[in-house]
Amino acid sequence: MIDATRYPRLSRVDSPADLRGFDESELPAIADELRAYLIESVGKSGGHFGAGLGVVELTTVLHWIYDTPEDRIVWDVGHQSYPHKILTGRRDSIHTVKQAGGVAPFPKREESEFDTFGVGHSSTSISAALGMAIANARVGNDRKVVAVIGDGAMTAGMAYEALNHAGGMDDEPNLLVILNDNRMSISEAVGGVTRMLGRMTSSQTLNALREGGKKLLGDKRSSGPARFVRRWEEHWKGMFVPSTLFEEMGFHYTGPIDGHDVKALVGALKTLKTLKGPQLLHVITTKGKGYELAEGDQIGYHAVSPFDPDKGLVSKPGAKKPTYTDVFGDWLCDMAAADDRLLGITPAMREGSGLVRFSKEYPERYFDVAIAEQHAVTLAAGMACEGAKPVVAIYSTFLQRGYDQLVHDVATQKLDVLFAIDRGGVVGPDGATHAGNLDLSFLRCVPNMVVMAPADERECRQMLTTGFRHEGPAAVRYPRGSGPGAAVGSALDMLPLGKAEMRRRGARIALLAFGALVTVAEQVGAELGLTVVNMRFIKPLDRTLLLELAASHDGFATLEDNVVAGGAGSAVAELLNAEGVTVPLLHLGLPDAFQRHASREDLLSEAGLDNAGIRASLLRRWPALGSEVATGIRSIAG
Amino acid sequence: MIDATRYPRLSRVDSPADLRGFDESELPAIADELRAYLIESVGKSGGHFGAGLGVVELTTVLHWIYDTPEDRIVWDVGHQSYPHKILTGRRDSIHTVKQAGGVAPFPKREESEFDTFGVGHSSTSISAALGMAIANARVGNDRKVVAVIGDGAMTAGMAYEALNHAGGMDDEPNLLVILNDNRMSISEAVGGVTRMLGRMTSSQTLNALREGGKKLLGDKRSSGPARFVRRWEEHWKGMFVPSTLFEEMGFHYTGPIDGHDVKALVGALKTLKTLKGPQLLHVITTKGKGYELAEGDQIGYHAVSPFDPDKGLVSKPGAKKPTYTDVFGDWLCDMAAADDRLLGITPAMREGSGLVRFSKEYPERYFDVAIAEQHAVTLAAGMACEGAKPVVAIYSTFLQRGYDQLVHDVATQKLDVLFAIDRGGVVGPDGATHAGNLDLSFLRCVPNMVVMAPADERECRQMLTTGFRHEGPAAVRYPRGSGPGAAVGSALDMLPLGKAEMRRRGARIALLAFGALVTVAEQVGAELGLTVVNMRFIKPLDRTLLLELAASHDGFATLEDNVVAGGAGSAVAELLNAEGVTVPLLHLGLPDAFQRHASREDLLSEAGLDNAGIRASLLRRWPALGSEVATGIRSIAG
Repeated sequence: MIDATRYPRLSRVDSPADLRGFDESELPAIADELRAYLIESVGKSGGHFGAGLGVVELTTVLHWIYDTPEDRIVWDVGHQSYPHKILTGRRDSIHTVKQAGGVAPFPKREESEFDTFGVGHSSTSISAALGMAIANARVGNDRKVVAVIGDGAMTAGMAYEALNHAGGMDDEPNLLVILNDNRMSISEAVGGVTRMLGRMTSSQTLNALREGGKKLLGDKRSSGPARFVRRWEEHWKGMFVPSTLFEEMGFHYTGPIDGHDVKALVGALKTLKTLKGPQLLHVITTKGKGYELAEGDQIGYHAVSPFDPDKGLVSKPGAKKPTYTDVFGDWLCDMAAADDRLLGITPAMREGSGLVRFSKEYPERYFDVAIAEQHAVTLAAGMACEGAKPVVAIYSTFLQRGYDQLVHDVATQKLDVLFAIDRGGVVGPDGATHAGNLDLSFLRCVPNMVVMAPADERECRQMLTTGFRHEGPAAVRYPRGSGPGAAVGSALDMLPLGKAEMRRRGARIALLAFGALVTVAEQVGAELGLTVVNMRFIKPLDRTLLLELAASHDGFATLEDNVVAGGAGSAVAELLNAEGVTVPLLHLGLPDAFQRHASREDLLSEAGLDNAGIRASLLRRWPALGSEVATGIRSIAG
Repeated sequence: MIDATRYPRLSRVDSPADLRGFDESELPAIADELRAYLIESVGKSGGHFGAGLGVVELTTVLHWIYDTPEDRIVWDVGHQSYPHKILTGRRDSIHTVKQAGGVAPFPKREESEFDTFGVGHSSTSISAALGMAIANARVGNDRKVVAVIGDGAMTAGMAYEALNHAGGMDDEPNLLVILNDNRMSISEAVGGVTRMLGRMTSSQTLNALREGGKKLLGDKRSSGPARFVRRWEEHWKGMFVPSTLFEEMGFHYTGPIDGHDVKALVGALKTLKTLKGPQLLHVITTKGKGYELAEGDQIGYHAVSPFDPDKGLVSKPGAKKPTYTDVFGDWLCDMAAADDRLLGITPAMREGSGLVRFSKEYPERYFDVAIAEQHAVTLAAGMACEGAKPVVAIYSTFLQRGYDQLVHDVATQKLDVLFAIDRGGVVGPDGATHAGNLDLSFLRCVPNMVVMAPADERECRQMLTTGFRHEGPAAVRYPRGSGPGAAVGSALDMLPLGKAEMRRRGARIALLAFGALVTVAEQVGAELGLTVVNMRFIKPLDRTLLLELAASHDGFATLEDNVVAGGAGSAVAELLNAEGVTVPLLHLGLPDAFQRHASREDLLSEAGLDNAGIRASLLRRWPALGSEVATGIRSIAG
């Protein structure tokens, strides 16, 4: 429970309706309490931190001005939604964020009527809000719709597509886009748009002129002949004052204003609330605002493990087990040293994808293309056309946004691009929007692709080398976090293409395990006396071995941390069916469902992919397996 | 062979090197010959027409100025590439375009070294060209790279992502983007960007000012302190002249110029060729230029069947068999009349997707969002949040570009969006870039989706109604062209969810056919005395029926016009394996390869999916089936 002594106002805000009971003069104090409470609770729980601190005032004012949840606030990405959650009934449970059964780390429709649109990936908010505005206008509902989007998210193509649509509609939608400009993605925001925003913010003369133009014209947009006035205003302003990108696109631009100035926010939003047509409010904020350490290290404090706010983040002493991300990052540098054709690409995920060292050691060969997965993939295709060897480092779930480019630009042309896919399979606390449960299915159906999943860290490095040297598109897909802890070494050796690794020669049933499930398969196989294969390649499969095993075993169980639907196990079934070989098959994998947020271990366990679950599934399918361990009976398949 | 009397110059151009042997003064005459030859040859072959006519002068001048293929020209989409193909060694074979074994309808790397990047989908050219420019700069190669992109393609997010990256790079790439501005996608271009381009073009005062600014400053970008001059120039211009979107993004803007004025093009490109850093040349052209009928009907002449240029397109008399696209278009209007929550969305494919009638009858409920598949899908998600029932009409291959949005915005939230997916399966003459071979695989792995494929036109309508009324995400995927010709009717009746249709009770082997292959399956089944099922639903499958059939048959053959990898047949295998039922299975579907361009019938036949191919596959797997037809032996499975 919240301490009413320390939080005299916030403790009385159980919902935005309570917030709206306060006088405007109290909003700064409420914002201060909200910030302090956020620091306290994220210190306990860990989670996304800097983005929330940056929108404390904005969140407070939005819920005070707008009649939420009747009016709709759509948060882009959702990293910044903790203050919103605290003000909308989840104050006392915010410390459970990311935990199984706790508050979701992003807005989630199922969780609250105040969470109008589920997010996790960036740059969806303008599209979603526009859809809401259109649907509401159709039925004569005049509720307000507000999208809050960061400048980083504004670099993604889909935000531009939405601006283009909204700004160009004849029947102008009533939509407010708040550009929360903090010059950051998770890392520093990059690209032409970022530079443009910088010029817009820094040029005081132009801002004065722009404001002057507005005052001269007045804000006539809500009056009858608004369209005419607006066109005339644009023309007039265009003659003397540079228009912004947003005005060019058809939005009415206001700003920039200080996003930590409650009075300025109230003033701007009160006016904007009354205006019709597409509006853009440009707000300047500081990521990590009000917590000095976070302001000083915006990348480090983007998302945090639990920490003591009085001390800040403390790096734990002792050798940390390297993650797959670390393995990739080291490999990238080593391979770059060995082959100067290597170029590394990330769509705004330098830290998450393990490219920090590479970006420092090879700045000329490092490309952060902003939140632009589509462009990242086709950029790589263009590079490959000219003999370079690009490596696209990307999370599994974000590769979905470059899917057409992978198919149409890379795979159809058999271009030499390596996809280093992090966060494949079960991801965990970030929930369904960040899960990598589908990639084996959507990748292996693509012709010309080579698709691999490593059983351990050493193999991850070998697969990266294999995929890099393979002349054509290849993907290595590895999980979040660390693996079994295999020594990685410094060699750049390859694996034979399409060859599996026999881990254990057993009898009766062969466990065909892919990637992260090899370790547990080996345990279960040893316990039950079964054959265990580390399949390594989802595509191409090891045909020779599979046919040999089919002839010598009574059945196969496939194991993968991908949905069963169309996954690696299905590939095995297809191969056998194509060969006319009928083998009893059991597919163990992730369920046909979006998984909740919980620890990776819990989710794997729930999916029956831990030791106990796998044993249980095997025994359910082949009950005799249990007794055979004792009796040694040979044939069990029915 | 080309007639040297009628084409005295063009007949001597076997390659751009020949073209460059001509004096500049002859270029207009060459362009005229090229245009006449294009009209003549597309008249014979059919194919994309208006876009090519619009770039005759530009293509001629580009190949005259640049040292192709050493310099790289990247054509966006490729609708406009016929003149390029004619000038680059394919003059005498251009009449075979789109035919099996003939010239590909789009640039294709395998076909010619002048085709630097394969296309088909729009808006990839800036990314690809930037990748080329970066890769070349890395190895000290100073070849020029030019991307030619239409204003329609400029509405897509990935073009913006590429502009943002190129314009924001510290190490400025040498890249020329030519904006071929003809105010058209396939239909009229829409959105804020289009309006902005219109203002840029029409405002003569501003253009004069802009030019004045340039003259005052000179073109100093190639000199040493280019960066400083450029920043200063931007600042100076910004004070008095509105900058363009492209300048805001970091490009140096030139234009607009008349793209049919050879002299103007030569002048501009000669200068631009010497400049460093990201350049944008804005060229105004007319789609269909020089062929009056095409200029007057730019949509109708975008792509044509063979026609007599002296007469123009003639609509064939007599009742045409309705296509699936027609069935969808009629259903959409009928359902809109029955349910006013229906909203229709197309990403710039009004004609192709069958929305012309709907756009006229329900203009307030019709949304052409420009070439913006990502936005189209999330816009629908936003609409669904507010109780509307959006229908996204989209080609299978273009849905790949909205894949993340389908997963992350629609499916995770179980939002009520219907995807009407045209051109599923084998598409044909447009080649691999337009094939719909993967959709069942990439859709059925997504939780919460309902996925259907109709056996005929009537069922298509029923499935659309079923998917529309189903509360949650659903997809109906139908092929290009017409089906077996079932009477469609005007009813809005539904099919039971997840229930297959028994078409023929036979024995021994059950043919489980999906969508377009039901008809041929029924023929083969009748000939061989087999059971035939119209599966209807790829997801959810008819479990009850499958288990019943498994118990009463010796084997299953699945038939689908999707790749076997992860497709509908795999779904059947997964279900049986999950139930612990082992049935000999044969999966018939499309190969794990990108198919060449050829007729739909030829491609299906090559894939073994016509009557003869299916019979042959069945008999190869179950040889006894052949004799049994004669002998009536019961059990054949091994």
